[in-house]
Amino acid sequence: MNRKHLTQAECPVARSLEAVGDWWSLLIVRDAFFGKRRFGEFLSSLGVARNILTTRLKKLVAHGILETIPASDGSAYKEYVLTEKAKGLYLVLIALRQWGQGCMTNDGDQEMTLVDRRTRTPIQPLALRSADGRELGPEDVELVAVQ
Amino acid sequence: MNRKHLTQAECPVARSLEAVGDWWSLLIVRDAFFGKRRFGEFLSSLGVARNILTTRLKKLVAHGILETIPASDGSAYKEYVLTEKAKGLYLVLIALRQWGQGCMTNDGDQEMTLVDRRTRTPIQPLALRSADGRELGPEDVELVAVQ
Repeated sequence: MNRKHLTQAECPVARSLEAVGDWWSLLIVRDAFFGKRRFGEFLSSLGVARNILTTRLKKLVAHGILETIPASDGSAYKEYVLTEKAKGLYLVLIALRQWGQGCMTNDGDQEMTLVDRRTRTPIQPLALRSADGRELGPEDVELVAVQ
Repeated sequence: MNRKHLTQAECPVARSLEAVGDWWSLLIVRDAFFGKRRFGEFLSSLGVARNILTTRLKKLVAHGILETIPASDGSAYKEYVLTEKAKGLYLVLIALRQWGQGCMTNDGDQEMTLVDRRTRTPIQPLALRSADGRELGPEDVELVAVQ
């Protein structure tokens, strides 16, 4: 099995990773959620080599995660914006963020928190819940075939 | 900036990706959640080259995501098990799975669903919620510094 085969893989985790599972791609998506749109903005935010950024942006467009639109200021630049399909990835980023904050903290970081824009209060931590609302851990769930 | 620098990165998403952001590592973690423990089990499940699997397992142990224990059957093999720290990654996998199912479906897949072991009913989709329980989309949240 190689990377190419996994877009046809049965596991949706493997299919998702084929699209966004390289390290830079998810950071580009993160920046796009924060409003970055131009090649130069991604370049300075990520400190990535130009050729790597070019390849990753092309791949994200090919996977229908980013699309290109004419620049909003009428200049000749194109801008990269998230597609509808990409919107669901914010849960992946928030889950990664939550795990990173809980388990891989560094001293000296400026602590940041996600707030609800409307009320300015912190959001609830992401949690997996049963149909009747109980919080579920990894040992509480099982993958079964739909009949 | 290169990969090494990002363990010290301020963004917890970047820190998490440094630990699990290569494609095989998260699939190894997924298999470990499904109860796989031995080198040979990961090897046949993932179809990955032995040298790549060796490197990834070492990295996951170094990051404190897997730990090695003596084989449960008393044989000379060692087994890889998820650490406490790794447990939080199930939300990342479920978010990837949910996005993969919603957006990257392939015809002909056997449909699988996650159920609550206790009630055998499907779990609620993962969702981001405000303190008062409203479901929030990516445009409803903002990252702010904690005062």
